[in-house]
Amino acid sequence: MPAPLIEPVGRLIEAFARLPGIGPKTAQRLTFHILRAPDAEARMLAAALIAVRDEVVFCERCFNISDAPVCAICLDPGRDATRLCVVEEPLDVLAIERTGEFRGVYHVLHGAISPIDGIGPDRLRIAELLTRAEARAAEGAPFDEVIMATNPTLEGEATAMYAAERLAPSVGSVTRIARGIPVGGDLEYADDVTLVRSLQGRRAMG
Amino acid sequence: MPAPLIEPVGRLIEAFARLPGIGPKTAQRLTFHILRAPDAEARMLAAALIAVRDEVVFCERCFNISDAPVCAICLDPGRDATRLCVVEEPLDVLAIERTGEFRGVYHVLHGAISPIDGIGPDRLRIAELLTRAEARAAEGAPFDEVIMATNPTLEGEATAMYAAERLAPSVGSVTRIARGIPVGGDLEYADDVTLVRSLQGRRAMG
Repeated sequence: MPAPLIEPVGRLIEAFARLPGIGPKTAQRLTFHILRAPDAEARMLAAALIAVRDEVVFCERCFNISDAPVCAICLDPGRDATRLCVVEEPLDVLAIERTGEFRGVYHVLHGAISPIDGIGPDRLRIAELLTRAEARAAEGAPFDEVIMATNPTLEGEATAMYAAERLAPSVGSVTRIARGIPVGGDLEYADDVTLVRSLQGRRAMG
Repeated sequence: MPAPLIEPVGRLIEAFARLPGIGPKTAQRLTFHILRAPDAEARMLAAALIAVRDEVVFCERCFNISDAPVCAICLDPGRDATRLCVVEEPLDVLAIERTGEFRGVYHVLHGAISPIDGIGPDRLRIAELLTRAEARAAEGAPFDEVIMATNPTLEGEATAMYAAERLAPSVGSVTRIARGIPVGGDLEYADDVTLVRSLQGRRAMG
């Protein structure tokens, strides 16, 4: 019988192919790259994978990535704990932190409601968000504002609406980030929905 | 200061982004997948990476992947050692082996000449191919036939031409795999170059 693909190679192709968005052809290409790459490159990737699993946890309060049970933002006494920003992903926290515009705390949902992908509210950290808001309300210190900063996509909008409705009774107010023409963008090339949102969201000048 | 992306996460994103065809956005997506995936999935990928580096070598004769210094095909006394098939990648060996049509031995170049990608003949196992052919010729047992089975792409054709020219003095004959209409394909939709090759490669029937 002809020699089959030797076993460790087949196993790495399979492991790569299990990653989202990596098909069998890409998995093969990555595997043969690893076979030919400098030894340090393959070992650094392996070590980084293990380190992420060993050293990174999700904050038990906001579900952002953390290296301690409660993350640095949640523990920071300088942050305004009455303002909560709800995002889909840990990377969204990073993006907002980079702006320096928000000094409150976060809640990471880890996704958005997407019926076609089979992702219902129960797959997200929405129950924990409601519990968190209700606990503060029960203590007589409800969140003043919950900013729904999910993506302005179908899924993000659905998620924002779903959560906002349920949060309303236990928080001061629920707001939604503005949707509009991006800075540097061109009205002429904006899609209709964005243009409508931009008009609806208009504000007094000066 | 706001919490930066915690260190192991940044390191894994970087390690993924070093893989070919994986941009920074995909690297982020893969990293967050790993963070959320079952523990076994991340550890299997890491173990598979290490195993491939520790257990897989390239055959010192044909440069196919192997788990021993000389691969199973090269060592198989049932193979016709006078017929050599030259391919670009180890996966091409696998594809040809699957057909059961070839009982000779292989030589894997590990790529094709591609000036725009900065890949010259010196980056491939072409020198080793010539040495191998010349050594057999010097022993009075030259290869009867060397089949150039590089891909029918610009790069593969250039590689086949480059190697064929240099092999000619020391081997019986150098042949090239047929280019033509794929089986099950449709003449009407074939590109002109393929159609020309298909006509040029016509053979007597019956």
